Amino acid sequence: MADNVTSALVAANEAFYDAFDTGDMQAMEALWAREHDVACLHPGAEPLFGREAVLRSWADILSGSGRPAIQCLDPRPIAFERAGVVVCFELLAGGRLVATNAFVTENGVWRMVHHQAGPISRPA
Amino acid sequence: MADNVTSALVAANEAFYDAFDTGDMQAMEALWAREHDVACLHPGAEPLFGREAVLRSWADILSGSGRPAIQCLDPRPIAFERAGVVVCFELLAGGRLVATNAFVTENGVWRMVHHQAGPISRPA
Repeated sequence: MADNVTSALVAANEAFYDAFDTGDMQAMEALWAREHDVACLHPGAEPLFGREAVLRSWADILSGSGRPAIQCLDPRPIAFERAGVVVCFELLAGGRLVATNAFVTENGVWRMVHHQAGPISRPA
Repeated sequence: MADNVTSALVAANEAFYDAFDTGDMQAMEALWAREHDVACLHPGAEPLFGREAVLRSWADILSGSGRPAIQCLDPRPIAFERAGVVVCFELLAGGRLVATNAFVTENGVWRMVHHQAGPISRPA
């Protein structure tokens, strides 16, 4: 059971970065939760709450000409019962971010409820 | 049930900031999970994984003479079944951070499994 949740979390996290990397707004809309509160904390930005505000921000990012290429590295799942959190690095042209992504099941389907990404200082 | 989880999440989140603000390392040790993987992403720092590394970082922060005064503002819970995430602001002398804190129940007790805090850019 815990192994199943762990695999599902990593797969849901991959689906998020695939949607981001390919600019697939339909996949992004499908991924975010409908029956739970959602939040999104883009780097340096004021937090966004609610499906409408969160998806609008992703539409802006994915449709923008400056959409960054992104690679997810070293995903580390923390599994609950039918929910969980994944911590991972985000590799971009400008450097590395570290991210928290949270997921929950809705009618057996894994959905995203939360994203926070923030900068890592380079070692001195 | 959802209301109970919401209240418990907000209370657990308060316990975290109380332990931080008063420098209470015993309370911090009691709060962090024993039976789940844990992670902690301090602002700008490399991620920490595992109870030992996470608690060592808190011991360093709480025992340091430069421990910042901190105030949690506007906690927003996202409730799962016996787990959840809280998004909130952290008000410090140097400015505001935004944080993700994740919690899960272990034998009926709410424990912390994850913390990420990151900067918010000031409006232009």
